[in-house]
Amino acid sequence: MNLTQSLVTGVLFSLCLPAWADRATDEPITPISPAQVSNPELVELGKQLYFDPRLSRSGFISCNSCHNLSMGGTDNLPTSIGDHWQQGPINSPTVLNASMNLAQFWDGRAADLKAQAGGPIENPKEMASNHTLAVEVLRSIPEYRASFKARFGNEAITIDQVTTAIAAFEETLVTPNARFDQWLKGDDDALTEQEQSGYALFKEIGCTACHYGPAIGGKSFQKMGLIEAYQTNNPAQGRAGVTGKDADRFMFKVPTLRNIALTYPYFHDGAYWNLSEAVDVMARLQLGRQLNDDENARIVAFLKTLTGQQPDFKLPILPPSTPETPRPEPFPEN
Amino acid sequence: MNLTQSLVTGVLFSLCLPAWADRATDEPITPISPAQVSNPELVELGKQLYFDPRLSRSGFISCNSCHNLSMGGTDNLPTSIGDHWQQGPINSPTVLNASMNLAQFWDGRAADLKAQAGGPIENPKEMASNHTLAVEVLRSIPEYRASFKARFGNEAITIDQVTTAIAAFEETLVTPNARFDQWLKGDDDALTEQEQSGYALFKEIGCTACHYGPAIGGKSFQKMGLIEAYQTNNPAQGRAGVTGKDADRFMFKVPTLRNIALTYPYFHDGAYWNLSEAVDVMARLQLGRQLNDDENARIVAFLKTLTGQQPDFKLPILPPSTPETPRPEPFPEN
Repeated sequence: MNLTQSLVTGVLFSLCLPAWADRATDEPITPISPAQVSNPELVELGKQLYFDPRLSRSGFISCNSCHNLSMGGTDNLPTSIGDHWQQGPINSPTVLNASMNLAQFWDGRAADLKAQAGGPIENPKEMASNHTLAVEVLRSIPEYRASFKARFGNEAITIDQVTTAIAAFEETLVTPNARFDQWLKGDDDALTEQEQSGYALFKEIGCTACHYGPAIGGKSFQKMGLIEAYQTNNPAQGRAGVTGKDADRFMFKVPTLRNIALTYPYFHDGAYWNLSEAVDVMARLQLGRQLNDDENARIVAFLKTLTGQQPDFKLPILPPSTPETPRPEPFPEN
Repeated sequence: MNLTQSLVTGVLFSLCLPAWADRATDEPITPISPAQVSNPELVELGKQLYFDPRLSRSGFISCNSCHNLSMGGTDNLPTSIGDHWQQGPINSPTVLNASMNLAQFWDGRAADLKAQAGGPIENPKEMASNHTLAVEVLRSIPEYRASFKARFGNEAITIDQVTTAIAAFEETLVTPNARFDQWLKGDDDALTEQEQSGYALFKEIGCTACHYGPAIGGKSFQKMGLIEAYQTNNPAQGRAGVTGKDADRFMFKVPTLRNIALTYPYFHDGAYWNLSEAVDVMARLQLGRQLNDDENARIVAFLKTLTGQQPDFKLPILPPSTPETPRPEPFPEN
């Protein structure tokens, strides 16, 4: 390339720049970056544990049962099915991009993914095991002992190590490269006009007051039913159950809108299956705004651009139990 | 390579031949060949369906729930957990290498994998849906409609197409290259002396009368408790339930011994968790032979060489439901 060519290229590049500039710094929503994996072996161990139903008392329920990575990191049920088909109290939030949340669970009672991971294992309505039994199961399996030794320097296996590994895997479950992210990074053609106008409206009416950041949510607790009360049979009190403060009643963690087209049904009670209805409810109850059909359709079109790259890995193969492994208890008589 | 080199190579090859000769033709057990996939897109569709819990009424149970490909194609439970946690009547057989069975189910009531696949979907104790509903669910999902149209030439979606796709996927679930297969193909070092002597004993005492062929079983129905009655609380009558003949009572399909180290607990009632105990029971009840500890250990060592290459594919991502999709019914009130 000679000087003239370089100059011409430079000028052309400058002319093109506005259309391809990174919008991220100007917007309340920022693109998701691909996961930076510093310890792939720990992630691999965490993936096995995530898929291992032997962490439940029945031997049937794994993390993936209710946070199904084939289905947007959810079970697509209003509330989950737990041990002996018990009905869970609240909608299972997606595990995708959950590392970006300010805290875990709808009421934020766990500080981070590691603190969350231990909860369902010992919850009698969910996996119905306990940390002692779960660790005893893993200790009885030579391949797990070897993996824990390689990752943590000893074969002891503690629940702290178990949840560290699961959290390390979950931290990789981010969904970059949604069409919206491509647009944020400057590719004008990544979104249609309707989708762009839906995003403009989303900001204009105030959705971004709560739904902001890379996960488009997950960064604050907000009252469900701010302008108008939310009608539900679900008894969850939200943040008040953690803080004991009356002011925190119905304060829930703002859910992420990433992959929202995959994570139906919506809200903490899972009462709404249709994204259009969910948008309508949010606009009315949180913003006091009745959207017309066109406005609703534009915002829904925008929301559908938030589906990013889904988990992309091989189904883990689990090491077999041994005669020493505590047996699962799927039914009372066994 | 010149003529002299060719001759020398030829002579050396001939000299080496005895040690590396293929034993397969001389043995009652033959190696498993890798799957020949003629229609990878159909297999991919079948894989999605295999992992899709929306084929169950609850939206929670998929083929993979009870034939878990992370766990030797089984659920590693005595009997399976079905809709609303109902207890299944019999141990879930492995789906691995199931294409080699003379028929499907323990009693052989389905002729092949395609005929089998429709059963659990409509069994009220298993997935508890029905074929009409299952097809209605799939028809409501544009990505499935497109996949079926591409594979079958139309968007109609029939249960026949559904089971064809699932069977096509299941036919790929073979487990080649077990250490025993390497040995069969002539690699003397693939098995230890104990393992080889275990195989010799396995043949000598007559196990291969029933456990033969590439799947080391699956080729005949045999009476459970031939010399001595098998004690069980399980009411299954075996083949008699299909034929109505009294002579077929307790006649069950001989299970494959491939991956037997992964497919515990054993027998049609899943009553035995320990491979050593299962070997002892079989030798006594079927062959009238009490094995001593050394004999038992040798046969167990041989059986552990039958673990082949496990499923090696990416977790499928499922297309989302739409507002038209019939909703799952996990609980009566929903």
